[in-house]
Amino acid sequence: MADAGATRRSPNWEARREAIVDTSARVFARGGYHGTGIAELCEANELGKGALYHYIGSKEELLAAIHDRVMDEVIQSAERVGAADGSPPRRLAMLGDELLGIIARYPDHVWVFLHEFPALTGARANRFRKRRRSYEQALEQILIDGVSSGDFREIDTRLTALAWLGMHNYTYLWLKQNGALSAHDVAIRFSDIFIRGIAAG
Amino acid sequence: MADAGATRRSPNWEARREAIVDTSARVFARGGYHGTGIAELCEANELGKGALYHYIGSKEELLAAIHDRVMDEVIQSAERVGAADGSPPRRLAMLGDELLGIIARYPDHVWVFLHEFPALTGARANRFRKRRRSYEQALEQILIDGVSSGDFREIDTRLTALAWLGMHNYTYLWLKQNGALSAHDVAIRFSDIFIRGIAAG
Repeated sequence: MADAGATRRSPNWEARREAIVDTSARVFARGGYHGTGIAELCEANELGKGALYHYIGSKEELLAAIHDRVMDEVIQSAERVGAADGSPPRRLAMLGDELLGIIARYPDHVWVFLHEFPALTGARANRFRKRRRSYEQALEQILIDGVSSGDFREIDTRLTALAWLGMHNYTYLWLKQNGALSAHDVAIRFSDIFIRGIAAG
Repeated sequence: MADAGATRRSPNWEARREAIVDTSARVFARGGYHGTGIAELCEANELGKGALYHYIGSKEELLAAIHDRVMDEVIQSAERVGAADGSPPRRLAMLGDELLGIIARYPDHVWVFLHEFPALTGARANRFRKRRRSYEQALEQILIDGVSSGDFREIDTRLTALAWLGMHNYTYLWLKQNGALSAHDVAIRFSDIFIRGIAAG
C-alpha cells in the first residue's frame, strides 16, 4: 500500500493507524474478536499481513487500541465534568450527556469495548481495568458529593453508580446517531428519571 | 457415549440435551459464538461429532436453545407478574426482582444471550425478536398502566422501558450468585431508585 512505508509514529502513520483501528472495530463488532482472523482484517483494511502488523503490532494490541479510543473519550469527559464544577445533579446530568454522545458516535468501538474486554490479557487488561475504575470513581464521587451537599438522599453510592452505568451504557444496543431521538434528548430524559430517583426529600 | 443412543425426545434425551446447552453456554461465553468450533463443543461435552449433532442439530440451533433457556424464564416471569395483579409500582418491582434472579442464576446463558443474538438468522432470529418484543411490551404495559392510574407521571413509556431494561440487564457484568448483595437486595434498591424516578407528584 502507498503509505505502508510511512515513518512509524509520523502524522501519516498515526492517521493511517487510526483509520485501521476504526475499520477493524467494525469488523470485530460483526464477527467477534475471537471469530475474526488476520486475513479478514487485512482484507477489510486493504493491507498485506506485513503492512497490517507494521501498524497494529498484534491483534490484541489492535483490540486495546479500540478500547483506548472509547476510554480516552470517556476519561476526558469525566475531566471536563470535574472542571465544570457545577452542583452534583448538574454534573451527573453532564456526565450522562457526554457518555451517550460517545456511545452514539462510536457504535462499533463501544460494541467491541463492552463485549471483548475479557480478551485483553496481562498489562493491557490491567491498564483497561484501571482506566475503567478511574471513570467509575469519578462517577461515584459525584454521588458522594451529592449526598454530602444534601442534593441526594442516603444511597449506596457504588450500587447507584452501577445502576447509572447500566442505564446509560446499555443504550449501545439501540441508540443511533441521527435516530428519532438524539443522544442529547435521551440523556435529558434519563437524567430526569435518575436524578429524581436519588433526590433528597 | 453411553446415552448418545437414547431415543430422541425421550426424557433421557431431553435431560442430556439440557446439560449440553448449559455446558455449551459456558464455552460460548468464554470464546464467543463465532470463535468456538464444533471440536471445542465436542470436547467440553465429552461427545463425538455425530453424537453432539444428534442432540443439538446445528451450532446455530444450539445458540437458539441457549437463548430460549433465558427467554423461557423471562417470559414466564412476565406472566407471573401479570397474573399477580398488584399496583403498577408493585408489578414493576416484581418484574425487576424476577429479572435479576434470572441473570444471577444463568450468568453464562445471559452473557451469550446479550452478546450473540445477532448470530441468529432467519426464523430463529424472528422468533427471538418476537419473544423479546413481547417481554418489552409487558414491561411497557406496566408503565402505561402506572401513568393511567396516576402512580407514574407523564413519561415516554418506550424510552423509560429501555432505561429500566438497561439498568437491570447490565447487572450481568457484575451480579454474582452468592455475591455480597443478593439479586433480591439489588432489585429492591434498583426499584427504589427507578420508581421514585418516575413517580407522580
